[in-house]
Amino acid sequence: MLRAGRLELFALPAFPLVSAGDDLAAMIVVSAAESDIGIADGDVIAIAQKVVSKAEDRFVDLASIEPSARALSLAQATHKDPRLVEVILGESRRVVRSKLEVLIVEHRRGYVMANAGVDQSNVGRSGEGEYALRLPEDPDASAAALCSSISKRTGKRIAVVINDSFGRAWRVGTVGVALGVAGLPSIVDKRGSLDLYGRTLQATIIGFADEVAAAASLVMGQADEAWPVVVIRGLEWSAPPLPASSLIRPAVDDLFR
Amino acid sequence: MLRAGRLELFALPAFPLVSAGDDLAAMIVVSAAESDIGIADGDVIAIAQKVVSKAEDRFVDLASIEPSARALSLAQATHKDPRLVEVILGESRRVVRSKLEVLIVEHRRGYVMANAGVDQSNVGRSGEGEYALRLPEDPDASAAALCSSISKRTGKRIAVVINDSFGRAWRVGTVGVALGVAGLPSIVDKRGSLDLYGRTLQATIIGFADEVAAAASLVMGQADEAWPVVVIRGLEWSAPPLPASSLIRPAVDDLFR
Repeated sequence: MLRAGRLELFALPAFPLVSAGDDLAAMIVVSAAESDIGIADGDVIAIAQKVVSKAEDRFVDLASIEPSARALSLAQATHKDPRLVEVILGESRRVVRSKLEVLIVEHRRGYVMANAGVDQSNVGRSGEGEYALRLPEDPDASAAALCSSISKRTGKRIAVVINDSFGRAWRVGTVGVALGVAGLPSIVDKRGSLDLYGRTLQATIIGFADEVAAAASLVMGQADEAWPVVVIRGLEWSAPPLPASSLIRPAVDDLFR
Repeated sequence: MLRAGRLELFALPAFPLVSAGDDLAAMIVVSAAESDIGIADGDVIAIAQKVVSKAEDRFVDLASIEPSARALSLAQATHKDPRLVEVILGESRRVVRSKLEVLIVEHRRGYVMANAGVDQSNVGRSGEGEYALRLPEDPDASAAALCSSISKRTGKRIAVVINDSFGRAWRVGTVGVALGVAGLPSIVDKRGSLDLYGRTLQATIIGFADEVAAAASLVMGQADEAWPVVVIRGLEWSAPPLPASSLIRPAVDDLFR
């Protein structure tokens, strides 16, 4: 009987709701220990951006926002809340495209994405007022801190992917992408490898961490955000770690910006 | 002890090389039966585009190709083999972008992708001459035929995803995408669902089959193409099946074409 290569993904069950200031690494370690999963050497832990943002208190109270003239004008064009547009612009370098109900920007960290990742859904904060939730200040730094803290608490060599869902040019629907990465290669450069027939591969750089994020997204669910942490077991790589910023195509090389 | 949600991916081991005319469904059923995996109700079987194209004999003998004036000119601009460019143009509706070593087209089935998916790497055909390999004629039809044949042979209710790797606008690296789908929803529309706080989700369509393809791609490997078939176990969905053509954004809605 031949044994197959195997990759397993486990959503941590009954993960508690995350609030500003929570020690997310500790919560993950406790939740993994209380389940039948645990944390093992080589595990990759995928964490939904929203719970990282919540723990880092990236909330903005919309009542405190005074929209600029530019935000008012964009809000009219997109039919969005002008205060939300103001928060989005504050997180962005520039607007890439806008139209009715669409606002695609270049986030200050370089991600080309809708609404700069600013979100009103699934954002509760003590149940009062209207809040928006921004992306973590520096997702690669957040991933590194979570990776280090989880490793220290468990004594295990792990990697962390903070994932989000992005829309795409040309294709319908969002897919999981890696916003922050620690301990694994965000991209894997296969150029120069040989194929099965001994030909040299010309142009294969793999968006490895984005594929990890997409896989994790399959088990996280979306609407109910019940499983924000996924343990991925059995993943192998040989390339050195690279942060998620490596996944951002430099504007100068980008034919579609 | 809480039991976690679980998704498992198994690469079928020692999958034989595929040649034109091979019965790929039969090969998958035999290979799964000879491994410790088997095929079970609810399994999703991800199959690399290349082996589907090979089984369907989508080879083109480059010696038979006479490049047009347009192919010659594009070949010069992109530094590609003019015969290969001629094959690419034959598979395309139009060129979206071209520059040195880059030729992004709209494939006749609507995919915006590099080189219309025409590939010279990992393509062996009796070891003589130079061949290019095109995408399956109709990937959704191929997926439906494979799904039906595997279901009949095993008596199991399964789904099939034919996956490929596409580059993206804005981001570095390729990721697995679904080229053909049968038996599962390529996209899942969450609009109208409630989030944890009872808010209605505004704009969440999930590229479900693309996430499945990306996950499968993690275990397929790339350069050596040793594991072209991956069995995915534990995936759940409630939306009705939709072919992979649903993942193609209509040109009229596309802000980046």
